[in-house]
Amino acid sequence: MKVVILGSGNVATALGRRIVAAGHPVTQVAGRNREAVMRLADEWRAGHATGWETVDPTADLYIAALTDSAIRDLPGKLSLPGRLVLHTAGALSAGTLAAVTDRPGVLYPLQSFRTGIALPTLFPLLIDAVRPEDLPIIREFAETLSPQVVRADDAERLKLHVAAVLVNNFTNHLYTLASDFCTREQVDFNLLFPLIRETAGRVEHYPPQQVQTGPALRGDAVTIRKHEEALAGYKDTGRLYGLFTTLIEAYYRSPEIPPRQTGI
Amino acid sequence: MKVVILGSGNVATALGRRIVAAGHPVTQVAGRNREAVMRLADEWRAGHATGWETVDPTADLYIAALTDSAIRDLPGKLSLPGRLVLHTAGALSAGTLAAVTDRPGVLYPLQSFRTGIALPTLFPLLIDAVRPEDLPIIREFAETLSPQVVRADDAERLKLHVAAVLVNNFTNHLYTLASDFCTREQVDFNLLFPLIRETAGRVEHYPPQQVQTGPALRGDAVTIRKHEEALAGYKDTGRLYGLFTTLIEAYYRSPEIPPRQTGI
Repeated sequence: MKVVILGSGNVATALGRRIVAAGHPVTQVAGRNREAVMRLADEWRAGHATGWETVDPTADLYIAALTDSAIRDLPGKLSLPGRLVLHTAGALSAGTLAAVTDRPGVLYPLQSFRTGIALPTLFPLLIDAVRPEDLPIIREFAETLSPQVVRADDAERLKLHVAAVLVNNFTNHLYTLASDFCTREQVDFNLLFPLIRETAGRVEHYPPQQVQTGPALRGDAVTIRKHEEALAGYKDTGRLYGLFTTLIEAYYRSPEIPPRQTGI
Repeated sequence: MKVVILGSGNVATALGRRIVAAGHPVTQVAGRNREAVMRLADEWRAGHATGWETVDPTADLYIAALTDSAIRDLPGKLSLPGRLVLHTAGALSAGTLAAVTDRPGVLYPLQSFRTGIALPTLFPLLIDAVRPEDLPIIREFAETLSPQVVRADDAERLKLHVAAVLVNNFTNHLYTLASDFCTREQVDFNLLFPLIRETAGRVEHYPPQQVQTGPALRGDAVTIRKHEEALAGYKDTGRLYGLFTTLIEAYYRSPEIPPRQTGI
């Protein structure tokens, strides 16, 4: 499979590296960030294009690893009839690039991408295609990149994208607020690493509803008041504290109460 | 060190097991839940007391692994003059048991405790004492239970407790809401495990501010609107989605913006 990578950002870099490592020839990197495009082309000994008009039209597979809005803007700028063109976005439909090619599809890695951080060995790769006959071709290619390839239609990908925002984006913002709080209050944020690790690890072995702990679950009003006082100088964190406390109390007050637990 | 465990819940069980495994003789388990007390006493070949009045007054060390309110209620019910009595609560002062003993202190494990889940090998054990001369005794004992023993005064413990609630209780509730959403929407929550693992693992290697991703960070209003529509039937999750989105947008709009990232 001769592959062209459209894009030079975090997803293009991480996914492109995995594609190269899997032995596929990446023949061209195309994008608008000249410096980043040249760097990746150099790394992969590939050609480069810094405008859509010079994209090589003869490859077998195009990976549009761009922002959602850049993907939505591709039609009209790029025409690749008969070529398999896959975008990497969770929240965009498989047909988004139908005006670019009659063979559009999706290769959506359910991961968070950052420059300089390699993809983990195991990450779910969600695939889809407008033409059913393209699906086995995409699957075969995807399976060279990840052991966990799952077909997911537009609605399913959007739902998983929402859930991913909850467990990744929002969780990471909680880490951020906790880290800022510890820094300003001069206590060691690193002391929380074992707890963070344990919390994330448990979800693979226990339903999270059954391992909830804490003052909101216990209805421990004295501790909640102390925490709110400690957060007096932290308006945003205090707002989240109040909302989570209300929601956790309400959640476990419902008829199907799991057994209450002590602990943090 | 002859040890008496006061309590028979999650913390008493997990910490008691660690104490026994470290080779300390646990000579008595005391608590009000007769069945749980007998079970632990049996497991540890220890004596038992199901009322505070029959607690053995001759031990070297008492661990009050009780709920915060039960710890606050101990004075008046129990008198152990000259004995080292440590409570396990993050949000209670070291002097909480000063009416029980002239040697009160703290042994606070910064972990989340659940019946049936063993303590991880590494967990921070925060210690404190009212009498300075008790501190080295508590430290020596604590170091047989965990390689990470740190002295933390009342204010420091409370702050770490607040931060622990953010990264454990609230994160776990996000997992719960995501899991409920996936179940009702019939997509596979397990597909999020690699992402959850990655998110938690990164915090040990990168400041969380620098690895934030997602539509709120990117100001991707189209995706945010799609997500809000997907959450229309989920009032509580929708409220959290809205608040987090507002807070993340505001946080990264501040003067010290880290470079924006693509990804989930």
